[in-house]
Amino acid sequence: MKRRGVLIVVSGFSGAGKGTLMKKMLETYDNYALSVSMTTRTPREGEVDGKSYFFVDKETFEKTIAEDGLIEYANYCGNYYGTPKAYVEMKLEEGKDVILEIEVQGALQVKERFPEAVLMFVMPPSAKELYRRLVGRGTETQEVIEGRMKRAVEEAEWIKHYEYILLNDDLEECAAQMHSMIQSVRMTPERNEEFIETIKEELKALVKGEN
Amino acid sequence: MKRRGVLIVVSGFSGAGKGTLMKKMLETYDNYALSVSMTTRTPREGEVDGKSYFFVDKETFEKTIAEDGLIEYANYCGNYYGTPKAYVEMKLEEGKDVILEIEVQGALQVKERFPEAVLMFVMPPSAKELYRRLVGRGTETQEVIEGRMKRAVEEAEWIKHYEYILLNDDLEECAAQMHSMIQSVRMTPERNEEFIETIKEELKALVKGEN
Repeated sequence: MKRRGVLIVVSGFSGAGKGTLMKKMLETYDNYALSVSMTTRTPREGEVDGKSYFFVDKETFEKTIAEDGLIEYANYCGNYYGTPKAYVEMKLEEGKDVILEIEVQGALQVKERFPEAVLMFVMPPSAKELYRRLVGRGTETQEVIEGRMKRAVEEAEWIKHYEYILLNDDLEECAAQMHSMIQSVRMTPERNEEFIETIKEELKALVKGEN
Repeated sequence: MKRRGVLIVVSGFSGAGKGTLMKKMLETYDNYALSVSMTTRTPREGEVDGKSYFFVDKETFEKTIAEDGLIEYANYCGNYYGTPKAYVEMKLEEGKDVILEIEVQGALQVKERFPEAVLMFVMPPSAKELYRRLVGRGTETQEVIEGRMKRAVEEAEWIKHYEYILLNDDLEECAAQMHSMIQSVRMTPERNEEFIETIKEELKALVKGEN
């Protein structure tokens, strides 16, 4: 029997290390698939269609919305971003645990449509460390960094809607903890109804057989 | 900051290996405390007061009920069995994760009074294996074994009220999984409100400092 995978949603402050964590998860364990988002924004240099994003035009995106082909979507700065349903469904059916890396509003949309989804929020060990990481990248202006910090304050209000927080201090440890959380989630009664039902039937048969 | 411990309730079919699992948990990890039940039944040979059970008379037990000193209790075959609240509270305050090994009705009483409690149900890999273990003990009559199997059928109906099932095939693995489930449970937002609040305040202070 192939078990359906777990749908995992990962959010977190910019600078919390989500990207690196996802990379580590895929490298270390073989039961994960990372969902690829669809967007109408122009590809940046080095971005690969079907890997970084599925790059589509506005018409295609809106057609996908109309056909209920997206798990969640949003419009930022005039561009659409969304999670195609078909890929996620296929991977879940294959038994893969599918990770969506999306921001808080999208995460809550997913939870509403898929109550069995597991929401994880990646956190830095401290605000100072977050600031240090954002500055350390050396690629952002002071204005952008401040904007991200302000956004983090707003996002912090939503953490209570997540199932778990993931403390990203040491990357290896954080990945191991994320993996073990997902292993635990697999052991809820709802995810093991078939097994429980089988044992129940077997028990009944044995009790009858003994009498 | 000392973190309050997690209250864990473990139930499972007779023969599923709860006792051995509890022993393994206490031997392997140092963050657990096993709750000791109070009972009015007569001590069996080898049982130690305060370790196997707190052995008390009927009057003391009923006084403890009246004073709301028990987390849960029940009456079986004319004897009272219950979980004293004071010991559990003390250990949780010390930061220990406290394990109560109790049957299904008691477990649901605990969940009602302590919604934050984590309920785990220990299962054998199959009904046949359960039967084999019960017979293998060599201490029970066929009648007693059949009674336990019938009781298991009834108990199976309640598994859906538990947070997790624990598959006890290999003892080491089962203990490791139980431990990692409890580590995961520690990472819910409700259990980390202080940490989240601190980060939020630090973020706000940094954003202000930057402007």
